[in-house]
Amino acid sequence: MTLAAPASLAGYKALMSVLPAPDDGATAAACARDAVLTKPPGALGRLEEVVRWLAAWQGRAVPVAERLKIVVFAGNHGVAARGVSAFPAEVTVQMVENFRRGGAAINQLAQCFGADLGVVSLQLDRPTADFCTGPAMSEEELLAALAAGWEAVTPGLDLFVAGEMGIANTTSAAALAAALFGAQGGSAGWCGRGTGLDDAGLARKEAAVALALHCHDGHLADPFEALRRLGGREVAAMTGAILRARIERVPVLLDGFIACAAAGVLERARPGALDHCMAAHLSAEGAHGRLLAALNKEPLLSLNLRLGEGSGAGVALGLIRAAVACHAGMATFAEAGVSGG
Amino acid sequence: MTLAAPASLAGYKALMSVLPAPDDGATAAACARDAVLTKPPGALGRLEEVVRWLAAWQGRAVPVAERLKIVVFAGNHGVAARGVSAFPAEVTVQMVENFRRGGAAINQLAQCFGADLGVVSLQLDRPTADFCTGPAMSEEELLAALAAGWEAVTPGLDLFVAGEMGIANTTSAAALAAALFGAQGGSAGWCGRGTGLDDAGLARKEAAVALALHCHDGHLADPFEALRRLGGREVAAMTGAILRARIERVPVLLDGFIACAAAGVLERARPGALDHCMAAHLSAEGAHGRLLAALNKEPLLSLNLRLGEGSGAGVALGLIRAAVACHAGMATFAEAGVSGG
Repeated sequence: MTLAAPASLAGYKALMSVLPAPDDGATAAACARDAVLTKPPGALGRLEEVVRWLAAWQGRAVPVAERLKIVVFAGNHGVAARGVSAFPAEVTVQMVENFRRGGAAINQLAQCFGADLGVVSLQLDRPTADFCTGPAMSEEELLAALAAGWEAVTPGLDLFVAGEMGIANTTSAAALAAALFGAQGGSAGWCGRGTGLDDAGLARKEAAVALALHCHDGHLADPFEALRRLGGREVAAMTGAILRARIERVPVLLDGFIACAAAGVLERARPGALDHCMAAHLSAEGAHGRLLAALNKEPLLSLNLRLGEGSGAGVALGLIRAAVACHAGMATFAEAGVSGG
Repeated sequence: MTLAAPASLAGYKALMSVLPAPDDGATAAACARDAVLTKPPGALGRLEEVVRWLAAWQGRAVPVAERLKIVVFAGNHGVAARGVSAFPAEVTVQMVENFRRGGAAINQLAQCFGADLGVVSLQLDRPTADFCTGPAMSEEELLAALAAGWEAVTPGLDLFVAGEMGIANTTSAAALAAALFGAQGGSAGWCGRGTGLDDAGLARKEAAVALALHCHDGHLADPFEALRRLGGREVAAMTGAILRARIERVPVLLDGFIACAAAGVLERARPGALDHCMAAHLSAEGAHGRLLAALNKEPLLSLNLRLGEGSGAGVALGLIRAAVACHAGMATFAEAGVSGG
């Protein structure tokens, strides 16, 4: 935490023009090692891509996966009162307690793959304002949320995952995605069933997103302003965390629809801002594929997950570990006395 | 190893009509537990399917992933002399040595996910006969190879993976797949680039497969006979191992194109014989998707792997561990005091 969070939105925007670049030397060294390992060139497919990506951002020819950190950000949303979720709003605080006691899916995944798990609860007793009738957050509230994410990322991590919990937050993410990437075909195209909405609930969600976009029409061109108006505290915290990770050259594994909407703020503020991110999975949330395409990210997994919490990225940690283990541990053709192709 | 391998092909065929069924009670109990875990129903997507499958074959409401076993079978092929591989035939024995010293990809994957790794080398100094001009194996040779696979699976395993190493074995698998599942559109449709064939090598491979099918025309209706004529020792060993696993109710994670061709013998001998198997991945080998479709299996991963060794299944062990960890470790709604949906 050597680097303080910017004190203003202007500070965040200024950062977007000085983002660090990948370490091309480390990537080249990783490729050179990969070329002499005892396998046909390219035979480990996307695991080789994972190694190049980790090398580039960790700045290591032989990347490691020891210091893995998952942080789950939790927030509550005024728009939940519109009946846009299959679960009542009190579940957010109940699940935060479940995370703290070790009972949620993300706890098991973190333990399974040796990741450290943090939980950041963001004023759950103060939901954001209903964004159908006004901005979700004041500028001060947005800055506090961005800073909470910023501070969750520490220098020297090998990999970071931002997870979330927040009843109604796919509604916020849908509105934000529509603002960032356009609502061609109607904003309903960004709305999915979240944790399991029925048809009536989905109709309420689509109506809420349409109303929000109408309410904020003409004020959504600036991605950070769109985040303030349509986001939530945990969404903004994810944005802050993903940006801080870029500054610290920490690779980020993007989770699902909400994480990708939060990341999208950065991509829209500066194309290429997510070069340090890989998409963990394609979730079951209907518009996640569309959002990944807008971010130009190819997901590692497609397992029909729709849980949030960072769980898709948590599962993908197994692939990260596998990729790193192969690259670091395999013998070379010369070491093993195997004839090259 | 309480159960001896059948002493004749008739013995294998007799077994096909007395295959054990899944444990529906254990599946129902796993589903009942899943329904009260702190997540929306279905939110863990295919990880829930993995749990049901493991429960059904392990016969446990809460399946485990402790005794994981990978066995790599290695064999040499007479057809290799036709220039159908990007690598020379001596690589098979060199790679077996690499497996034994711990230098291959599958060694790293086994260690990464806590699986036990065995290597079974099948008369590498005696390649099978060139199946373009006659049967690859005598009946005695086939029985020995089937038995080697049979004996590699021990009762009480939580999961089994059959891997392979054998220069030219995608050629054998292509011919076998064509014999088992038909060569509509031409047998070339079953041929891919293996470990990295160039166009000329691929043309030689396609010609070899077409020649083999012509040579054995009229003798391929019996799947075990097709295996004898077109398979290889490591291919037949995988067939024997996958069958033994079914008899012992051990779940099997199918690797790539060659493992699926070996498994296909059983499916053709008796539809449903692979109900204890899940497909680990879709590999980069061109016809693997077609073969998976013929087996009616949906792969868990699609990472463009094309290494063999059981590596695709090795990577998927991470998903198995993740699925089991969530199911076993998550709190219920009642335990956590979380409001249900």
